[in-house]
Amino acid sequence: MYVGKSVTRTDAYDKVTGRTRYTDDLCDRGAYTARVLHASIAHGRVVSIDISEAEKIPGVVRIFTCFDVKEKHYFPTAGHPWSTDPEHQDVADRLVLTEEVRFYGDDIAAVVAEDEVSAAQALRAIKTEYEEYSFVLDVQEAVKEGAPQIHKDYPGNILKHTTIRKGNYEEAVKEPGLVRVEGWYETPAVQHCHIENFICYAQMEGERITVTASTQIPHIVRRVVGQALGIDWGRVRVIKPYIGGGFGNKQDVLYEPLCAWLSMKLGGHLVKLNVSREETFVCNRVRHAIRSHIISWVRPDGTYAARKLEAYSDQGAYASHGHSIAAKGAGAFPQLYPCENIEVDAYTVFTNKPVGGAMRGYGIPQAMWAAECHTDEVAARMGMDPVAFRRKNLMPKGYKDPFSKNELYYDSFNQCLDKAMEAIGYERKYKEYQNQTGMIRKGIGVSVFWYNTAVWPISLETSSCRMVLNQDGSVQVQLGETEIGQGADTAFAQMTADALGVLLKDVHVVSCQDTDVTPFGTGAYASRQTYTAGCAIRQTASLLKERILTYARDLTRMPVYNLDIKEGNIVRITDGRILMTLGELSSEALYSMTNSQHLTAESTAQIKSNAYSFGCTIAEVEVDIPMCRVKLLDIVNAHDAGTLINPALAEAQVHGGMSMGIGFGLSERLLFDEKTGRTLNGSLLDYKLSTFMDHPRLKAVFVENPEPTGAFGTKALGEPPVCSVAPAIRNAVYQATGAAVNEAPLNPHNLFLKFSEEGLLPD
Amino acid sequence: MYVGKSVTRTDAYDKVTGRTRYTDDLCDRGAYTARVLHASIAHGRVVSIDISEAEKIPGVVRIFTCFDVKEKHYFPTAGHPWSTDPEHQDVADRLVLTEEVRFYGDDIAAVVAEDEVSAAQALRAIKTEYEEYSFVLDVQEAVKEGAPQIHKDYPGNILKHTTIRKGNYEEAVKEPGLVRVEGWYETPAVQHCHIENFICYAQMEGERITVTASTQIPHIVRRVVGQALGIDWGRVRVIKPYIGGGFGNKQDVLYEPLCAWLSMKLGGHLVKLNVSREETFVCNRVRHAIRSHIISWVRPDGTYAARKLEAYSDQGAYASHGHSIAAKGAGAFPQLYPCENIEVDAYTVFTNKPVGGAMRGYGIPQAMWAAECHTDEVAARMGMDPVAFRRKNLMPKGYKDPFSKNELYYDSFNQCLDKAMEAIGYERKYKEYQNQTGMIRKGIGVSVFWYNTAVWPISLETSSCRMVLNQDGSVQVQLGETEIGQGADTAFAQMTADALGVLLKDVHVVSCQDTDVTPFGTGAYASRQTYTAGCAIRQTASLLKERILTYARDLTRMPVYNLDIKEGNIVRITDGRILMTLGELSSEALYSMTNSQHLTAESTAQIKSNAYSFGCTIAEVEVDIPMCRVKLLDIVNAHDAGTLINPALAEAQVHGGMSMGIGFGLSERLLFDEKTGRTLNGSLLDYKLSTFMDHPRLKAVFVENPEPTGAFGTKALGEPPVCSVAPAIRNAVYQATGAAVNEAPLNPHNLFLKFSEEGLLPD
Repeated sequence: MYVGKSVTRTDAYDKVTGRTRYTDDLCDRGAYTARVLHASIAHGRVVSIDISEAEKIPGVVRIFTCFDVKEKHYFPTAGHPWSTDPEHQDVADRLVLTEEVRFYGDDIAAVVAEDEVSAAQALRAIKTEYEEYSFVLDVQEAVKEGAPQIHKDYPGNILKHTTIRKGNYEEAVKEPGLVRVEGWYETPAVQHCHIENFICYAQMEGERITVTASTQIPHIVRRVVGQALGIDWGRVRVIKPYIGGGFGNKQDVLYEPLCAWLSMKLGGHLVKLNVSREETFVCNRVRHAIRSHIISWVRPDGTYAARKLEAYSDQGAYASHGHSIAAKGAGAFPQLYPCENIEVDAYTVFTNKPVGGAMRGYGIPQAMWAAECHTDEVAARMGMDPVAFRRKNLMPKGYKDPFSKNELYYDSFNQCLDKAMEAIGYERKYKEYQNQTGMIRKGIGVSVFWYNTAVWPISLETSSCRMVLNQDGSVQVQLGETEIGQGADTAFAQMTADALGVLLKDVHVVSCQDTDVTPFGTGAYASRQTYTAGCAIRQTASLLKERILTYARDLTRMPVYNLDIKEGNIVRITDGRILMTLGELSSEALYSMTNSQHLTAESTAQIKSNAYSFGCTIAEVEVDIPMCRVKLLDIVNAHDAGTLINPALAEAQVHGGMSMGIGFGLSERLLFDEKTGRTLNGSLLDYKLSTFMDHPRLKAVFVENPEPTGAFGTKALGEPPVCSVAPAIRNAVYQATGAAVNEAPLNPHNLFLKFSEEGLLPD
Repeated sequence: MYVGKSVTRTDAYDKVTGRTRYTDDLCDRGAYTARVLHASIAHGRVVSIDISEAEKIPGVVRIFTCFDVKEKHYFPTAGHPWSTDPEHQDVADRLVLTEEVRFYGDDIAAVVAEDEVSAAQALRAIKTEYEEYSFVLDVQEAVKEGAPQIHKDYPGNILKHTTIRKGNYEEAVKEPGLVRVEGWYETPAVQHCHIENFICYAQMEGERITVTASTQIPHIVRRVVGQALGIDWGRVRVIKPYIGGGFGNKQDVLYEPLCAWLSMKLGGHLVKLNVSREETFVCNRVRHAIRSHIISWVRPDGTYAARKLEAYSDQGAYASHGHSIAAKGAGAFPQLYPCENIEVDAYTVFTNKPVGGAMRGYGIPQAMWAAECHTDEVAARMGMDPVAFRRKNLMPKGYKDPFSKNELYYDSFNQCLDKAMEAIGYERKYKEYQNQTGMIRKGIGVSVFWYNTAVWPISLETSSCRMVLNQDGSVQVQLGETEIGQGADTAFAQMTADALGVLLKDVHVVSCQDTDVTPFGTGAYASRQTYTAGCAIRQTASLLKERILTYARDLTRMPVYNLDIKEGNIVRITDGRILMTLGELSSEALYSMTNSQHLTAESTAQIKSNAYSFGCTIAEVEVDIPMCRVKLLDIVNAHDAGTLINPALAEAQVHGGMSMGIGFGLSERLLFDEKTGRTLNGSLLDYKLSTFMDHPRLKAVFVENPEPTGAFGTKALGEPPVCSVAPAIRNAVYQATGAAVNEAPLNPHNLFLKFSEEGLLPD
């Protein structure tokens, strides 16, 4: 059995020796280079684009402007599975190039040149005239009457507003003796900062267009390119090579449609579109900045009587993943600390800023920031230990979500808290750090999180798998679910080996997706892959096994029910004897003169369930009050992600998520010029990405409660590690200083404001 | 319905616009270049190779010699399906590099360099010492006692000798009144001269090796590379892009094993091995030169009493396809003109010459040369019209092959002869050209041929197919059978469209084979593909249709048996009403929240049958006797290839084969230096390839007798067009001059010898 073992990554050797080839490595050097001209105003209309000087630059092939987009095929970009029900389809508000400028950086023209230098020169030589409109950067300003209108179909700039009502909030707050705790919490726009920038290239074959892209979601890209070009989706082929990270940015369709459009305009010539790091910050996607307002009414015994959440999610200029992020975050609110009387209002609001899309955690890091900052304030107001308060109020074992029907089968929260507290020595430190004085203080803080795996029942969960048996008994496994650096292929290989009964070395996961031949699967997001693809793998392996054993029956004269596959051998169950190797059987089947069979199996697993992942972070900090600086001393994440398929990879995943969470909590934030709407720090020099140097040793501990709905007992672990890190750090600073910093990140700027307000700073 | 229509090739637009990418186009330019050092003796042993100077050349990465091949994994190279029965396996007599030199050009070392120039320089700087043995170039010399021994396991250099005995030849020849006709017939070694030379590149991914190759037989290459490297076959992945012709040369495994071995020796680095035209002539494969001896005993009524054939096939230095060619040719002898008393002996003999392999026709052009030259001599001796004699003796309607159980269902030979005679005006011309005198004479000649489609029951016939339904109702089709320039993909698309009930534009044949994901199929050879893949396509389409209609049942409330798919729509049979499009159904199925299904189907069709293809050539020539020159005035091929899938492509196929046959008959021949064994004319300058300039307008006529064993009524047409061309030309010259030129080609050299012997030349 391989599930549960820390086997070496299937791609480890290629990655460390540099043999792995990414999108750019694969592109023919005869490709034209495409570069996008981005708008230099935040809101307005392109009046004219003068390309006459640019066209003269040697090496320039063609320049296309927004005025060349004659057929207006508006398309959505969210990496969602799609629905045939128009009510559930994503908002189609994009064109490959736009006359209407909605943010500083919008795509208004594209240069195609023989090389990058010519393309860059041409971009500079293009002259654009705009009609400028007033713009709005703040969500609450955007919803006010008289605010600039960004999309005509969305009055008040509200993309969507959802409400959750449970019990009767208005009545409940009248209960005598309640303590009211109120707070505003805010998270910034941050960027994914995957190592490999987005890149794609496109060319035509016959009447079809092939796009090779650094994406998490090849099958979705296929559909969206079809929509964007106004052609049948089957005329689009998308290939996904190895990719250097995505974190949700590549769960959006980025420049694949434009690149395909350019190739088609040029008779199908190969066109490559390589996005710079600076464009990545501004013209890809960012994490939605969310401003939340929470009011809790607490009984003297520390239980909630009523709660209210109002959240404003900053969508930026286009709908992309839209309200899903705010909805997921808002949906977590009533469940994390169940309460009889709840009012939730979540608004997703257009602003003239870079577009919010999917990012690791998908609303939950923002929701946990609000909820868990608030929780510590409530605990403090009630004079309770933050952990004790949580234990009293958290979703209990046996909790069942009335909507998704998910169940909390275990006492996961308490188990995670116990493990994390032990790992970091919480009790001792918490006591030690109470009531400090002085300019340098320490603190320890806790945050929990809840995250549900995959997207059912909001949306479709389907995963198809194909397995192909080779002459030597090894198998290829094809899935639409993608390796994006996280180790998915390794987990798929382990699960396949176990499900089929073969050695791990004999499982070859086809890492590259090609929508022409790869079974349909929607890709890497919602921490769904190990869970959903696991179901497809187990089901398909079972079908292949049945085919194999049926063939073995004729060769061994044994009934199928007395045969099994173990370690790549056909064994007789009754005495365990090896009757033949799988390779012998497969060769006989392929080359049989009487009954030749290529033994393969393929099936679709629809998953009508998801699973709750849980966990917590405990962070220990040292705060230098005068310097407004937080040093992270120690940190631990505890996770119940069900059975770990590969503990080493699980730990690596948690470390990566914690690193991202540390940046979210301490340093990362995109800044925008109030006067122009321009992104001020869209480069790795100016954007304060959290790095290895900012981290203490990252600790990860696990509670492995097998998930009963999963094929291998596993559930989400891709996104959860980022969810509770920032509020834990904030709560540690809160313990150390008493200053409730409610706006992330806890960088010197925000700390200075808060410490000043609290009078903590020396005069 | 598309079968039977001359639809445009699926790859036409890409081919003519230059968008199609072949193997070399796809190779990363960071690849190392490999070049092979070929032996400069015909027979002997490499004593030492001094690479010291060569290694010093800048850009040289590594040089490997035959002494670096420590693990001796002997491997076969024939593009045969393989058998698990050792008795039916191909001869494994190759190593990636050899110490034992068996022909001038054998592979003894390889240079790997950063570029081609360095590699070429290094080749020249290598110094090799040999121990030389005596060598033999002639098949009949090779079988004599005391001849040099080329492979130790094959005494007398006989790779294989087969006999066919029917009736009693010795007794039969005693029948009174018989006329004895005897002749020796000989065909030369020729080369395929496909446009794209062989090329491949290899690199490792993890523990696996991926080889991209210009091959007709990707799944077979996978197996042979595994054998050659001594690794599990599943560790090998072979990718076949578009290729620029093969004609059987690429039905052999050429340098894929060496290229893979070099990459593995270099830590998996990408290595490209691009074969030059000069190497193609000498170090790839050639058509087996065959010398045949026929004795016929003919009754006064023009029927055969007894016949005898003795054939010597020149294998060259390695077994490759071995005896299969001679065996196929010899097997045709008793069937073409059935006779009660037959003796056939066929020998395949090693010589110290370039290796004989598969080439279009696979023994039949050589066999028809012998048989049909002989037939005209018999007719002449009997004073009979050559056509009348053939009609009297040819395989009749209803003939059943006792071995293969194939049947001649129609009067195909007479139908083909009738059509061809009409097309060229045979009767009139034949009379007109009788009894000419003068130095410039005309003649008209006939030759028939018989060719059986595919390889059953000699070997395995299996074809697997997978179909994948897209959201728009279009489908991908995957097959192991390969497009090699002949238009196979177009035929597959037409058959799929008809079998499934969709529009042709909605069938996307996956042209590139990748053994990791492509269903098992053995590739392009034996004119098998349209016949065998047709069966797999029809069977798989039927499975997919069943899945589609089963899904449609739930959406339409109609029983499956009242539903059909027509032109991409789900229709109700009873009233023909369109209920929904296939695209609507497919989208519903993929995105269904209740029953999500990726509709695909895959199946293996084993074909336990083959089919006889028939036809004839009639050629009209003008012979300039003093100049020893033949001018081809007119030529027609008539074919019964069953139902034509695509008449335009069929005609093109016939034209190509006729062109190759014209070269075989008039100009092409590889020459070898008697003193060294070196190939004398291995370049396109010296080798007299037949070109467009040597051809009259090529005529093709068809008799379409539907083949009952095929899925679409079709049978072989890939190889047949080449089979009867050369003897028809020779017979035309025979009619014109009375000179029976029995050695092909009828070039001035051979004509001079014969005309001199016959006293035709002016003094």
